Amino acid sequence: MKNAIHFEIVKTHRHSSARLGILTTPRGRIDTPCFMPVGTQATVKALTPEDLKSFGVQIILGNTYHLYLRPGHDLICSLGGLHKFMNWSRPILTDSGGYQVFSLKKFAKVTEEGVTFQSHIDGSSHFISPERSMEIQQALGADIIMAFDEPTPHPSDPRQTETSLRLTTLWARRCKEALRSDTQALFGIVQGGMHLDLRKKSAEQITGIDFPGYAIGGLSVGEEKSLMYDITGYTANILPTSKPRYLMGVGTPEDLLQCSAMGVDMFDCVMPTRNARNGTLFVKGGKINIKNSRYQSDPDPIAPDCSCYTCKNFSKAYLRHLIMADEILAMRLLTLHNSTFYQQWMVGIRKSIADDIPFNMD
Amino acid sequence: MKNAIHFEIVKTHRHSSARLGILTTPRGRIDTPCFMPVGTQATVKALTPEDLKSFGVQIILGNTYHLYLRPGHDLICSLGGLHKFMNWSRPILTDSGGYQVFSLKKFAKVTEEGVTFQSHIDGSSHFISPERSMEIQQALGADIIMAFDEPTPHPSDPRQTETSLRLTTLWARRCKEALRSDTQALFGIVQGGMHLDLRKKSAEQITGIDFPGYAIGGLSVGEEKSLMYDITGYTANILPTSKPRYLMGVGTPEDLLQCSAMGVDMFDCVMPTRNARNGTLFVKGGKINIKNSRYQSDPDPIAPDCSCYTCKNFSKAYLRHLIMADEILAMRLLTLHNSTFYQQWMVGIRKSIADDIPFNMD
Repeated sequence: MKNAIHFEIVKTHRHSSARLGILTTPRGRIDTPCFMPVGTQATVKALTPEDLKSFGVQIILGNTYHLYLRPGHDLICSLGGLHKFMNWSRPILTDSGGYQVFSLKKFAKVTEEGVTFQSHIDGSSHFISPERSMEIQQALGADIIMAFDEPTPHPSDPRQTETSLRLTTLWARRCKEALRSDTQALFGIVQGGMHLDLRKKSAEQITGIDFPGYAIGGLSVGEEKSLMYDITGYTANILPTSKPRYLMGVGTPEDLLQCSAMGVDMFDCVMPTRNARNGTLFVKGGKINIKNSRYQSDPDPIAPDCSCYTCKNFSKAYLRHLIMADEILAMRLLTLHNSTFYQQWMVGIRKSIADDIPFNMD
Repeated sequence: MKNAIHFEIVKTHRHSSARLGILTTPRGRIDTPCFMPVGTQATVKALTPEDLKSFGVQIILGNTYHLYLRPGHDLICSLGGLHKFMNWSRPILTDSGGYQVFSLKKFAKVTEEGVTFQSHIDGSSHFISPERSMEIQQALGADIIMAFDEPTPHPSDPRQTETSLRLTTLWARRCKEALRSDTQALFGIVQGGMHLDLRKKSAEQITGIDFPGYAIGGLSVGEEKSLMYDITGYTANILPTSKPRYLMGVGTPEDLLQCSAMGVDMFDCVMPTRNARNGTLFVKGGKINIKNSRYQSDPDPIAPDCSCYTCKNFSKAYLRHLIMADEILAMRLLTLHNSTFYQQWMVGIRKSIADDIPFNMD
């Protein structure tokens, strides 16, 4: 089977384990480390494809669980696949649906065969197995697809965690066997909870199956930040150097920087878009909440040196007015800012690696 | 006092009373007949200024009542006025606040001095008089401002209607006296309910005060369509030929065409934007509701010959998915379509006048 993607490490950072890479896919190039905006329901909330391109997004994430339930993968497939459906011509990564299925765990029943769960939309009953997840993700047609795993709940003791990672390994093998397309790259997912020995065991099993890329799953689930960093650093270090490493569902700008330094190449998180809709905006050195009354008559942009459309055109006073008045435009303008911030942040990380500048947290 | 605006009638239609005009304001030219998108809270809902310019909008409307309550006219004034606040450099017309105050009538108390009413936001008590409306509209800084009137409720008998129009005339005179700015054009408003003789009386009184433009108020309030057309046609016909005529709060595409034929030059209505948010989309020959299940797998755009961003890029199936999934992007894409449709509709009306083509309702 030919490789759907090609990953080249251009350079490693003199001051850390960070790598500057180029991930080449059938639909275009991705400079790594990269951040993938989350397009849960075939749209990055409040943004158009042109918006995403305008601030340099090279790949977005789609959620298999949501698209399977609504509008349905068969419908999307019959309309030419997810790219055409949402009019996004650049690469897409879809998750496996596992995370969402298990986050509704009280309504889910797990067997070795797969997971039976209830739709959050209408309560209807559904079944997803590794094979079914592959079938759905192939119908959606993303460039990178993820193995169907069981994210280990947190906290979990070693015994629970080991049971869970064994299922993840079993399912990963079945996903690879079920893969029919040679234009989609299937990534394996390493679990193992908060136990280094079990992370090692999972990494050995998953890399033993051999995938073109590996994800670190089951983190950012309520654990201490330092523990998340420990597990990430440890796991990234035992994954193959030559394959892209994707840390799922992480995180803050600081997380992206710290974990890039540990050798992670890919990130995704709802934080920039969800925070924007709540009025929380990222700026250098931290974040602000635009709803705060201190911005009521502030004539300045969110960040004077930001190149985003919002900062070029609108004052904090206006943005605060829009969100206080529940105006839809607020959602777009604030999402544009945060999303631009995240892409620019990754540009900065990549530049630091290229120029061998130590990562600066200020 | 110098004229803030200049109105030139380029041509009258051979087949109707329609006029092709150019309304010149300090902030730019407006081709008439024109349709003004409604920007109630310092934003045309879901659209940016760039969106509006992209489909040719030359003037928008702002709502004095809403902006007075939130964020406040003083705040907007201190930030450089409404244009700068919302980053819209082209002309703006503000209404007087009267319509909104009276549509909350059960909470409003009217005297000859003015109206005491309660805020719909927090129930606080406020007072607006003709002088206060002028003060607020001058602080907002729109290019065209409206006299503070009492929109006659419907139905109203001749006696109630006459009492109401007398107050409107009294207030119109006080508005003109209170006007301090010579860069804002103040339009008078003709009331008179559904009674032709009282429309005549109101028109005589209001034009007697002498304004640079006249509005026809108090229509599209639940009356029969044929009655609305009768009153509009009659009233437009007795207004000065050389001044712009603005039919407030109207209406459907057919209304714009019929009333342009009667010699109306300016329109505003929330219909294109509000309908879009409910999924009702204007197409040639009528409208469709994109939520209808018949569009579930429809690969075609809303209208194949429409030049809007939405029709150029997305299928009805995708748009239906977005609105069914409560996605914010649906609001923008559907509003873009309807707003483009309305501007293109006016282009068509103006072309028919220019070329002396009979208005075609199909």
